[in-house]
Amino acid sequence: MTLPVAIDAMGGDKAPGEIIAGARLAADEGLPVVLVGPDDGSLGDTGGIAVLPASEVIEMDDEPGRAVRTKKDSSLVRAAEAVRDGHAAAMVSAGNTGATMASALLRMGRISGVARPAIATPLPVPGSTPTVMLDAGANAECKPEWLLQFAQMGAAYFTARYGGKEPKVALLSIGEEPTKGNDLVKATHELLAAPGTGLNFVGNVEGRDLLTGDVDVVVTDGFTGNVALKSLEGALRVFMRILGQVIGSTPETKAAGDVLLPVLMPYANSVDPEATGGAMLLGVDGVCIISHGSSSARAILNAVRAAHEMVEGGLVEHLREAVAVAG
Amino acid sequence: MTLPVAIDAMGGDKAPGEIIAGARLAADEGLPVVLVGPDDGSLGDTGGIAVLPASEVIEMDDEPGRAVRTKKDSSLVRAAEAVRDGHAAAMVSAGNTGATMASALLRMGRISGVARPAIATPLPVPGSTPTVMLDAGANAECKPEWLLQFAQMGAAYFTARYGGKEPKVALLSIGEEPTKGNDLVKATHELLAAPGTGLNFVGNVEGRDLLTGDVDVVVTDGFTGNVALKSLEGALRVFMRILGQVIGSTPETKAAGDVLLPVLMPYANSVDPEATGGAMLLGVDGVCIISHGSSSARAILNAVRAAHEMVEGGLVEHLREAVAVAG
Repeated sequence: MTLPVAIDAMGGDKAPGEIIAGARLAADEGLPVVLVGPDDGSLGDTGGIAVLPASEVIEMDDEPGRAVRTKKDSSLVRAAEAVRDGHAAAMVSAGNTGATMASALLRMGRISGVARPAIATPLPVPGSTPTVMLDAGANAECKPEWLLQFAQMGAAYFTARYGGKEPKVALLSIGEEPTKGNDLVKATHELLAAPGTGLNFVGNVEGRDLLTGDVDVVVTDGFTGNVALKSLEGALRVFMRILGQVIGSTPETKAAGDVLLPVLMPYANSVDPEATGGAMLLGVDGVCIISHGSSSARAILNAVRAAHEMVEGGLVEHLREAVAVAG
Repeated sequence: MTLPVAIDAMGGDKAPGEIIAGARLAADEGLPVVLVGPDDGSLGDTGGIAVLPASEVIEMDDEPGRAVRTKKDSSLVRAAEAVRDGHAAAMVSAGNTGATMASALLRMGRISGVARPAIATPLPVPGSTPTVMLDAGANAECKPEWLLQFAQMGAAYFTARYGGKEPKVALLSIGEEPTKGNDLVKATHELLAAPGTGLNFVGNVEGRDLLTGDVDVVVTDGFTGNVALKSLEGALRVFMRILGQVIGSTPETKAAGDVLLPVLMPYANSVDPEATGGAMLLGVDGVCIISHGSSSARAILNAVRAAHEMVEGGLVEHLREAVAVAG
């Protein structure tokens, strides 16, 4: 029997309503799920989905380490324990990112040999397979050896998720030459370019290459990765706002918008973060998906799909093998 | 008599044609300019603009330090010398960025008290004053004390360029809390938040805040700044490409595009890097503008305008005063 995916019912800006709605969509598709949250009926109608009881909630602004230590009966901690104890196949949360990482790390533990888990985020490439960027924010301060492991884990994840052998792995820098970049990047470049890593390393890329689809995996420290990711999100938001303003300005532009928007829709869908299934925490001993705080039901559904896919695809085993390759 | 702005005729992807065309546009507006390049007639018709002779060219892929040392008669080095020797008020180049920095630094020298010059780039804010981000790429590896100076120089530059007292200065990080970020950011936050810096420090911002116009100056190290800038550029490029594809797909969408594009144009202009006048190298003892490699005549014209404006506004003096404030 397939184990369910444990969904943190209390995590996210739209919790628990949209989270439960997403869980129900997944159940309707035949994907086994279990909700983690209060079992006092306050979750409302779960459509028959079982609830793993958890009486506490880690809030978005709670300090992650402290919250995980003190709120032992929180939905986030209980979700991670469900995976550890073999009651769930994977966990999904749209809650406090730091606390999700801490819960997963402290309860599931690390894959043997992994120095630090990293957040792998799919960057949308219009009309093509996403580019996986990691670390997108788990480790603000990194060592070159960790980035080598991020590259190995990112490549294994890319193959498990999107298929294709020997994905192209690149290092995020400020110039293509190996001598460009900060100290961390220069030292990491040497490690990635050395033989025996099991990687198809294609060199450095720059910020403007993130959305072109030219490479499959982009490796960076969690500070730079988070800044890059949020810069892209911010740019997208500005574009959409401007386009909305332009279209809404007169009856003529509204009519023109009615013609263009349906054609634009497939592109918009392919860059919609709700469609990607969320970010994956790679390196913990279990499948853990970190969904965007603003996740709607559809985002949760897609996260559950991705979680089941990665469990069936043996993601954790693939990661274990990838980091076991000498670097 | 107003000194001319020295324009590197040989720098940029479209040099010398577009550079000379830009110089001529500036001269037509009554802005004094001088071209720096070969005086053997190979520049063609300069429209009567004087040419400061320079027989060598630093190429885009030349190693900056080495190029400045060995190509002593290059247009870039001669342009910087013209400022140093009082023959020009400022320099503008769309050539090799690293070599432009090295030429300016080695020939003009630093403003007394400045640890490192930084590249200040205007980030377009649709319908509003740009946000100045620095360092956009001069220093891949930074110390907290340098970032404090970048903040002081950035604020002085913002006021000189766009007016307004006490511009809002923010630190680029991965969360608003002072405890978020990498080691450099946490240490810098303390320096910026301390009294006596002369700054209106408003705290941390994230990548998604870069284009909102909520703050006037964003401080970051040159690695992160360059990645953020190029991520934004990349997103803009993808967006424009998609919009072009959508509009061009059928006669109906083409007609709709004909209605929307004129309304979109003012927004597009406000995010057009050619309109901003280029990036400013702050901290050298003279006004030095680093234009985009792809600069057309219009970009050069706007750079010359900005250069004259900053010379008349006493930018270097303002920077000197800003960094003289104890931090």
